[in-house]
Amino acid sequence: MKREKITLSFEEMPKSWYNIKAELPFKIDPMLNPGTGEPIKPEELAMLFPPSLVEQEFNCEDRLIPIPEELIKEYYVYRPSPLVHATGLEEYLDTPAKIYFKNESVSPTGSHKVNTALAQAYFNKQDGFSKLTTETGAGQWGSALSYAGTKFGLDVEVYMVRVSYDTKPGRRHMIHLYNGRVYPSPSERTEGGRAILKDDPDCNGSLGMAITDAVEMAVKSDDTNYSLGSVLDHVLMHQTIIGEELKLQLEKANVKPDVLIACVGGGSNFGGFVFPFVMDAINNKDIEIIASEPQACPTLLEGKYEYDFGDTGKLTPKMKMYTLGYGFVPPPIHAGGLRYHGASPIVSRLVNEGIVRPDDLPQTEILKAAQIFSLTEGIIPAPESSHAVASTIREAKRCKETGEVKTIVFNLSGHGFMDLSAYDHIGKL
Amino acid sequence: MKREKITLSFEEMPKSWYNIKAELPFKIDPMLNPGTGEPIKPEELAMLFPPSLVEQEFNCEDRLIPIPEELIKEYYVYRPSPLVHATGLEEYLDTPAKIYFKNESVSPTGSHKVNTALAQAYFNKQDGFSKLTTETGAGQWGSALSYAGTKFGLDVEVYMVRVSYDTKPGRRHMIHLYNGRVYPSPSERTEGGRAILKDDPDCNGSLGMAITDAVEMAVKSDDTNYSLGSVLDHVLMHQTIIGEELKLQLEKANVKPDVLIACVGGGSNFGGFVFPFVMDAINNKDIEIIASEPQACPTLLEGKYEYDFGDTGKLTPKMKMYTLGYGFVPPPIHAGGLRYHGASPIVSRLVNEGIVRPDDLPQTEILKAAQIFSLTEGIIPAPESSHAVASTIREAKRCKETGEVKTIVFNLSGHGFMDLSAYDHIGKL
Repeated sequence: MKREKITLSFEEMPKSWYNIKAELPFKIDPMLNPGTGEPIKPEELAMLFPPSLVEQEFNCEDRLIPIPEELIKEYYVYRPSPLVHATGLEEYLDTPAKIYFKNESVSPTGSHKVNTALAQAYFNKQDGFSKLTTETGAGQWGSALSYAGTKFGLDVEVYMVRVSYDTKPGRRHMIHLYNGRVYPSPSERTEGGRAILKDDPDCNGSLGMAITDAVEMAVKSDDTNYSLGSVLDHVLMHQTIIGEELKLQLEKANVKPDVLIACVGGGSNFGGFVFPFVMDAINNKDIEIIASEPQACPTLLEGKYEYDFGDTGKLTPKMKMYTLGYGFVPPPIHAGGLRYHGASPIVSRLVNEGIVRPDDLPQTEILKAAQIFSLTEGIIPAPESSHAVASTIREAKRCKETGEVKTIVFNLSGHGFMDLSAYDHIGKL
Repeated sequence: MKREKITLSFEEMPKSWYNIKAELPFKIDPMLNPGTGEPIKPEELAMLFPPSLVEQEFNCEDRLIPIPEELIKEYYVYRPSPLVHATGLEEYLDTPAKIYFKNESVSPTGSHKVNTALAQAYFNKQDGFSKLTTETGAGQWGSALSYAGTKFGLDVEVYMVRVSYDTKPGRRHMIHLYNGRVYPSPSERTEGGRAILKDDPDCNGSLGMAITDAVEMAVKSDDTNYSLGSVLDHVLMHQTIIGEELKLQLEKANVKPDVLIACVGGGSNFGGFVFPFVMDAINNKDIEIIASEPQACPTLLEGKYEYDFGDTGKLTPKMKMYTLGYGFVPPPIHAGGLRYHGASPIVSRLVNEGIVRPDDLPQTEILKAAQIFSLTEGIIPAPESSHAVASTIREAKRCKETGEVKTIVFNLSGHGFMDLSAYDHIGKL
C-alpha cells in the first residue's frame, strides 16, 4: 500500500505566520484585569512576556507576521512536515472517504509544541532576556521549551507536576538532555511552593501550582520571563505554520478538504492547524471543522462560555472562553495535554459562532483508534492526537454508511513513544 | 540551516535484497553441529526456521533475492527511508567533512529491526506456520516482531529478560499494543525456565536464558518457529534494503562516500548498511568501512576469531566469528543492543580480511555524541546508534585537523525516545 507523502521544499515553506484576528468578521473579547475588570493593557503583560510577544498578542491588524530568518533556520531542522495520504487506514476502514494527516510528530521532541517554543525563545533572546520559566504537566511542553532555549542560548527552568516528575521520568530525562533544569512542583524554591509543602509535604502537585511556581520565579527576576505553551493568541499564531504548510500541500496535491479535525486541550495544535482555513469555512461554508476533546474533560461541549481564570491559582488575567470552571479537576486520563478546564479564547469564539463543531470521545474509543492507526499507518500516536484519529474514524465510518466521498484531513500533533503505558491494556485488534 | 533530504519514490525503492555471499571472493565458514563438528545441514535448521528462510541462509549463488510483493507493500508503510545531509552537525563541528546519515528511525517501532521482522513473519506465514517465539533484551526486537506478526496474522510470543521486563515497561507496552504476548524470562512456562527459577526464584534473567525459553517453546510445537533478530546470514540479508536504497540515493545526489559507519552488536544494521558497498571496497579500495562498538564489549577489536556458540546456553550451532566467549557477560551499558559476545560470521570475516575496521568507543563519548546530534539534527539517537554518531564525529574532527574533505555516511539505526534514561546525566553541552 503506497502512502503518498506530499512534501514541501525549504523554499516552499511559508515564511509568515497567519494572524487570524486581522481577518475575522468579529472582534475577540479582550483579556480582563481580574482586579479592575478593565481590559488588560500591554504594559501589564510585560511583567511576564517580552515586548515582541506582547505586540503579537495585541496585534489585530496584520494578516501575516513575518517569521524571522534565524527562526526559519531552526524550523528547517524538522519542517516542512509531511502531509500523508493514509491509504492503510482507508483500506482498513473500507471507507469511500479520503483520509490525510499532517505529521507534526517529526519534531525534535515529538510534537507541534516546538513550533512556538522556538519562537518564544527567539523573541525573548532578541528582547534581551536570558532565562525562561515554565510549568509542565507530563513534560511535553517543558522538553520543547528546553530544546528551544538551548538553541537560542537561554536558560530554561521547568516546574513539573510532582506526580509526573516522580512517575514519568522520560520527559525529565529529555529536559536534561536538552540542557534544561526541571524541578518537581510544588517547589522548595518558591514562596508559593514552600507554603503548600508546609501544609502538605507529600503534595502531588497540579498544573495550577506549577504555574504559581513558574510565574513567581519569572516575576522576581528582571532577566527572566515566563512562557506558556498554549491558550494565548500569540502561541496559537506561531502554530499556524502547520496550517499554512497544509494549504500549500493540499493545493500541490490538488486535494480539497471537506473536513478538518484536530484535538483541543488549550487549543494550540487545533488553532495552528485550522485557522488558515477558517475564513473559507465562514465565506463558503463548505469546510467542516471538528474539535476533538475527551469526554472526561468536555470543555467545548459542556463548558460555559464566560470570563474565567486561565489557572487554578487565579494568577492569570480573565479570558472569555468555554470553561468547566478554574477549579475543575479532570479525572486522570492518559491524554494529559487535554486535561484543561478552559480553551483558547479564539477557538472558543469559533465554537460559539458555530464555525467549529466539538466532538467528544470516551477514552476506550481513542485507545482503540490509536491501535488501529499504529497498525495501519505505522506511527504510534500520542494519546492527545488519538482523539483526532478517533474523530476521523467516526467520520470515515459515517461516509461508509452514506456512501459520501469526503476528504478528511487531521492533525497528528505528536507521537506516543513516551506515553506507551496508555496502550498497555487495549487487547487484541 | 537547510537539511537536504534525498528521498526515493516507491517506484525507485529496490525490489530485491542483496546476497553478499554470491559475490565475495572467499567462502564464509559454515556453521557447525556442536555434537558432530560437521557443517550444519539445512534439515537441522528446519527444526526452528521455515524452509524459505533456511534456503536463504544457505544460498551462496544468487546475488539478488526478490522481495515478495506482499512484503514490499509493508515496506511502503515506512520505506524508502530518507538520506539526510547533516548540515547542522557539520556546522557545529566546523569540519570540512561532508556528513550524511540514513534515517532508519522512521520505522513503526523506531529502528531497522522491522526490516527483517516483516520478512521473517511473511515467510513463516507463507510456509504454513502460525506462531513465532523469540527472546528480547530491552525489547526492541520483541516489539518489531510483534508488529510484523500482527501484520501477517501470526501469534508472537516474546521472552523478555526479567530485569528489563520489570524496569523498562515501555517496550512491553508496545508489544501489547501490537498484539504480542510477552513473558518475563526465565519463565514458569518452560522446563528450562522452571529449572532455573527453582534454584533462584528471583533470577534477573539473561539473553541466554531467554533464548532457552523461546527455543524450547518453538521446538515442542509443530506450528511454531523461532525467530532471531540478528547474526544469521538471512537476517542481515533482509537488512540490505538499507544499503541498496542508500546506493541509489547517493547516485541521485551525486555523492561518493569515502567512509561508511554503522554500529555493531550482532551486526544486522551494520551488514544491511554496508554489504552493498563491500565489493567496491574490495575492488577499488577507496571506501573505508568502520564498525563502531562499545569499549565495554569490544567483540571485533579484542575478541578471538574462532568457532563459538551464539548463546550462553550452548543451544545454537557453532559459528566462526569474533567472540569474547559465549560465557562473557558485558557490563550493563545503556546500549543494550550492542551487549553481545559474538558477531555475524560475515561481518567477522570482513574484519578479519581487513575490509572493515573496528572502532571502539567509551560510553561517555557516545552519550555526548548523542547530545550533540540531538541538538544539531533534532533527532535523539538510540544509545546503539550513538556509537555510529560518535565514530562519525571522530572522523569529522580528523578531517578538520588534516583539512581533508571526506564524505562520511553513517546509519542512524534507531531513535532514543524509549531510552532516555541513558541521557539523564550528561550535563550541559
